[in-house]
Amino acid sequence: MTVNSAPTVVTLDIGGTTIKGALVASDGREITLLERPTGAAEGTDEVVRRVRAAARDLADAGTVGIGLSVPGIVDTAAGVARHAVNLGFRDTPLAALVAEEVGLPVVLEQDCRAAALAESEIGLGRDARDLMVVVLGTGVAAGLIVDGKVLPGAGGSAGELGHLPVYPDGEDCACGQRGCLEVYASASGIARRYAAAGGSFAGATAANVAASLDSDVVAARVWREATEALGLALATATLLLDPALIVLAGGLTGAGDTLLRPVRTELQGALAWRAAPSVANSPLGGTAGRLGAAILAWRAAGYTDVVSRELRDAV
Amino acid sequence: MTVNSAPTVVTLDIGGTTIKGALVASDGREITLLERPTGAAEGTDEVVRRVRAAARDLADAGTVGIGLSVPGIVDTAAGVARHAVNLGFRDTPLAALVAEEVGLPVVLEQDCRAAALAESEIGLGRDARDLMVVVLGTGVAAGLIVDGKVLPGAGGSAGELGHLPVYPDGEDCACGQRGCLEVYASASGIARRYAAAGGSFAGATAANVAASLDSDVVAARVWREATEALGLALATATLLLDPALIVLAGGLTGAGDTLLRPVRTELQGALAWRAAPSVANSPLGGTAGRLGAAILAWRAAGYTDVVSRELRDAV
Repeated sequence: MTVNSAPTVVTLDIGGTTIKGALVASDGREITLLERPTGAAEGTDEVVRRVRAAARDLADAGTVGIGLSVPGIVDTAAGVARHAVNLGFRDTPLAALVAEEVGLPVVLEQDCRAAALAESEIGLGRDARDLMVVVLGTGVAAGLIVDGKVLPGAGGSAGELGHLPVYPDGEDCACGQRGCLEVYASASGIARRYAAAGGSFAGATAANVAASLDSDVVAARVWREATEALGLALATATLLLDPALIVLAGGLTGAGDTLLRPVRTELQGALAWRAAPSVANSPLGGTAGRLGAAILAWRAAGYTDVVSRELRDAV
Repeated sequence: MTVNSAPTVVTLDIGGTTIKGALVASDGREITLLERPTGAAEGTDEVVRRVRAAARDLADAGTVGIGLSVPGIVDTAAGVARHAVNLGFRDTPLAALVAEEVGLPVVLEQDCRAAALAESEIGLGRDARDLMVVVLGTGVAAGLIVDGKVLPGAGGSAGELGHLPVYPDGEDCACGQRGCLEVYASASGIARRYAAAGGSFAGATAANVAASLDSDVVAARVWREATEALGLALATATLLLDPALIVLAGGLTGAGDTLLRPVRTELQGALAWRAAPSVANSPLGGTAGRLGAAILAWRAAGYTDVVSRELRDAV
């Protein structure tokens, strides 16, 4: 641990398999990076132990706050991870458990909402008061920014875009519903549907599918169905929320324009009487959740606008 | 016009066929009521003339502000009715045009958002920070309250629940899309589908259909399909917004439990892994838009919390 009296925050993005963290200076510079297995297979207590250890190991003498980004259903105000299947969280008071370890203010946020906050503060959403950040990874979920603020919902579970029933009589989803967006447009769904449709190469990932559209008719069909489903879900969200901007994030955006172009077309095609909002791929990549948690940590420690501006300039 | 120096506001709900207005005292009492044809067939200028006249005629010596509730796409901040097919509004600066007539602060709000505000302040939503008010009339639209505030969206068109594509390959909607909720679950849609399905009595309304479920298999099917579509759309909105409460309003709620019971069942049935929010019929009936516009008029005139409490007690 470096002795350093300049203010810093620790930010940890706790995923299903990996904890990715950083010690961040007030100019946005990441002083130390950390990447460790989450240890989810060893149970919730072990995950909590590793999160506490990661926070302690990253903190330095100047650290003024900790930001945590976790998947699932999160009660941000209470600092409680209500439910996260992969990590075994069930009403886990994660903020308090980490605060106990480090003796500092700790903020907990759901990963998509943290990503949306980062996008809103320092990413493409800097000029928008209303935007939606859609994270397309193993699953699909969204973080909503309404009038400049993150929308958690009454029970902390707003933004479940992945389970919108885009095709009410569609394919079964693991969640128990049918025709959910996630079935068609998540990375795992695309890989599974390609294999199920007799796609020609084994062990294909969504990235493989995206890279084979010109040469592989099965890949082309599965990808088209993914972007059609996504266009429909984004049309639904647009009609309800009227965002100025939709930002796509997560692993699937690695496909670049191969994703973006058809999604824009499908979205506008599903909206007969209003213009579609702008759709763009996130420039923040996989770090958005961590950046959002860092912003929250600075805020919790009383460093607000200045740091936000500095972080912005650092991106 | 009564000479009266106690503060009052004028509220006008401008519908496709009727202007319904009131002069409201600060204890919530409606001193004078007004109901006049909108005059939409005679063109937008005539509608504007009638709105101005209604405001002038209702105002008394104590009037401190005017609230207007109109359908369509509304820019509340600018006081502009962006678009309303039935009334011919097209970027019509209605708030300024009425202010010119009466020399008082004028607030313009979209009718569903005004209804949602009223529900949130003085109706069933008094204890909820996040709720959705669904107006089921000739068309279907929703007003959204997020963290205690009305959500207008980036372009003033949030809450277009009636055009959610609940069945992507469904029946054509007048809007140009397919399978919109409004096709199945609006009063006009129910009447039209009953007639198209060969329903046995001519000129049936949605209320007739709702009253005939036990004796008329066509009515029973059309009503079931309406509540199924509504349940799906409410599930979609729940997954995105996570409201604590959904309030049903508009003419269709005249069917009472005949509407409410199947909608609750369909909503929960469409949500496999989370509890449905509460669903209830509005106690405010057709006056919600007018009440919401009154609340906004009081606020615009600088009368805020006290009046809100008094209005609340008056309901």
